[in-house]
Amino acid sequence: MQLQRNTMERRKFIEQTAIADAGFIIAKPFNNFSQDQQKIKDMSKNIPSRGYAAKDASGRLSPWTFERRPVGDNDILIDIKYASICHSDIHQMRGDWGKQPYPQVPGHEIVGIVAAVGKNVTKFKVGDRAGVGCMVDSCMECESCKHGEEHYCDHGATVFTYGAPDKTSPSGITQGGYSNNIVVRDHFAVHIPDHIKLEDAAPLLCAGITTYSPLMNARFKIGDKVGVAGIGGLGHLAVKLAVSKGAEVYAFTTSPSKVKDILAFGAKEVIVVDDISKLKPYRKKLDYMISTIPAQFDVAAYASTVKPFGHFTQVGMPVGFELTLSNIGLANTRVNFNASLIGGIPETQEVVHYCADNKIIPSIQVIKAQQINEAWTKVLNKEARYRFVIDAASF
Amino acid sequence: MQLQRNTMERRKFIEQTAIADAGFIIAKPFNNFSQDQQKIKDMSKNIPSRGYAAKDASGRLSPWTFERRPVGDNDILIDIKYASICHSDIHQMRGDWGKQPYPQVPGHEIVGIVAAVGKNVTKFKVGDRAGVGCMVDSCMECESCKHGEEHYCDHGATVFTYGAPDKTSPSGITQGGYSNNIVVRDHFAVHIPDHIKLEDAAPLLCAGITTYSPLMNARFKIGDKVGVAGIGGLGHLAVKLAVSKGAEVYAFTTSPSKVKDILAFGAKEVIVVDDISKLKPYRKKLDYMISTIPAQFDVAAYASTVKPFGHFTQVGMPVGFELTLSNIGLANTRVNFNASLIGGIPETQEVVHYCADNKIIPSIQVIKAQQINEAWTKVLNKEARYRFVIDAASF
Ligand SMILES: [Zn+2]
Ligand SMILES: [Zn+2]
Ligand SMILES: [Zn+2]
Ligand SMILES: [Zn+2]
Repeated sequence: MQLQRNTMERRKFIEQTAIADAGFIIAKPFNNFSQDQQKIKDMSKNIPSRGYAAKDASGRLSPWTFERRPVGDNDILIDIKYASICHSDIHQMRGDWGKQPYPQVPGHEIVGIVAAVGKNVTKFKVGDRAGVGCMVDSCMECESCKHGEEHYCDHGATVFTYGAPDKTSPSGITQGGYSNNIVVRDHFAVHIPDHIKLEDAAPLLCAGITTYSPLMNARFKIGDKVGVAGIGGLGHLAVKLAVSKGAEVYAFTTSPSKVKDILAFGAKEVIVVDDISKLKPYRKKLDYMISTIPAQFDVAAYASTVKPFGHFTQVGMPVGFELTLSNIGLANTRVNFNASLIGGIPETQEVVHYCADNKIIPSIQVIKAQQINEAWTKVLNKEARYRFVIDAASF
Repeated sequence: MQLQRNTMERRKFIEQTAIADAGFIIAKPFNNFSQDQQKIKDMSKNIPSRGYAAKDASGRLSPWTFERRPVGDNDILIDIKYASICHSDIHQMRGDWGKQPYPQVPGHEIVGIVAAVGKNVTKFKVGDRAGVGCMVDSCMECESCKHGEEHYCDHGATVFTYGAPDKTSPSGITQGGYSNNIVVRDHFAVHIPDHIKLEDAAPLLCAGITTYSPLMNARFKIGDKVGVAGIGGLGHLAVKLAVSKGAEVYAFTTSPSKVKDILAFGAKEVIVVDDISKLKPYRKKLDYMISTIPAQFDVAAYASTVKPFGHFTQVGMPVGFELTLSNIGLANTRVNFNASLIGGIPETQEVVHYCADNKIIPSIQVIKAQQINEAWTKVLNKEARYRFVIDAASF
């Protein structure tokens, strides 16, 4: 009760300040603000930021200081607390998906505390716990954007969190979450409820929504057999989410060392696919399969585990975003292949609440910024267990 | 009435003969038997055959005489009247789908008259009009084979009409329909009703069933918008079939010279895709799309014409059977991609009856065997209008 009243009073204060100032609001409602944030005095000034950036396609990151745009009328400034490491970060920085501008700060699993809000912002107030995922803007006017599918903006105006051309950014491109703060349009941040730790929430912003969205879209029934191929950051959450939604989960991994963990996540069976022939006994067994394999693989062979006319979703993005599949092999399975890309903002908010409420907690290892390169190597070697989360205090 | 009585009497005669002979039956019920057929006297002897074969991967065919296996207890001998030219014939003979054994006779759109039946055969009698499509045998014992999905035999025992290893064939492989006869297990031949011309029926055995099966599986409703991409032998039948089933058909072709024809087939609109940007105005417009494009193409761009969560079926088989698609592009469409391979025997029989009953007649040009190479060039140059049908009397 007391807490609620305080919150309401603070909101009132913020609203008044916003009107008076006609700019953005900066405050220190709790004592969790960094020194940098407190120094911001002028709404028209760029925001200084520190982070780790790729300077070339080597796949190595190093410290970088840069600037964010000023906090605009519809923006919020987030004091980042944690950012986790997604395989996509590595793909993109190495140029696997096309030539990149550098320096570039990766990171699209971002959580922190709102440190400032623009004058039009009502969704957040200073001090709120907030998360940012794979996108930071879109046209907001088209049918897709108006209906919570900002990631499929009809005008192709979806702005991804890092590496996207961005006139508002002092560096000319969006810069991601491996840093101590971020400025983002309010609509593209989601609330992180109090009953999940910030570091546990971070992986939900990409890995969580990327697996949750197609799993929900698959509309499997309780007791249905759901396959998950590739048990890394995305896959381990897919297992936990599908289990929590009542599926009988069959997990396919190439890592024998993950078997025990995956069973503990609730999988019914774990299949170590050290040879493609290991898929044979599962022919036509599954009602649905999701693959998080972020590389070229034998799509038709994996799809053959799904019942004819079932669906198979690919969420891992291979090199060049391209996948070569055997058309005759896929014909033999009669399985429907689709690909899925993250999820919209409302659904991202949904997965965060769902996981907090149902205790679907990512399995994480918290690291310091100085361990990022080492962690990337582990991700590439399939040694992550299962998400590295960077403590932003170390930037 | 009179005809029916005669038919019944003939059947009775055949049955009695079969029992008496315990071998295969040869007769001349009408006067449409070739000289070759009439010479067959011994059920244990190979059947002499004449046709056109590829002798190498050059993509050129030349006359070849060879032998078929003797007519077995479950076999029928068909005196071929017409065989039509499928793009697949060219792909396979040229080695586009893997190294081939030669000489090899292509052709899997085959119609003719039953000239002999093995002692166990009840499905056909001598004199029946019969057709053979893309397969000539399978295990016949698995769940798929027992349920009319012989082309998806669980034991992988589907035997395709030409080029497949075949111990029963004197040449060691199955030999196709560009020839004057064929021996085939009775189950794998279908009846051609009297109210469709044999030459018109030929293209139904591959082009017809290959498009009919996925169109039926798509379960579109009357008035739904169905796209057909690639308007050749398969595509022009897809247009006619979809129109006859009540769809509003959008045809996508790269040949401006086909527009008038395609509108006459009943298409609502014909889009000449001389540039991939021509697809843009059709974004999210269609309920379903079938592509017969037998080569690598921009799958995601074509799929973008289908409404999100709709389905897209690929029936054309590209070089190496492989298709490379943009996974992120497909994600953006949210369309389900599947591939389809011909259809089972019951459905093949169904499409033949459906087309005969509803006057869905392929647009054909009848040619002589001596024109096959010229016709193949025309197929490759997209100059076929729309199926070349070889008059088997010219072999
Ligand atoms: Zn990610
Ligand atoms: Zn938009
Ligand atoms: Zn064919
Ligand atoms: Zn079988």
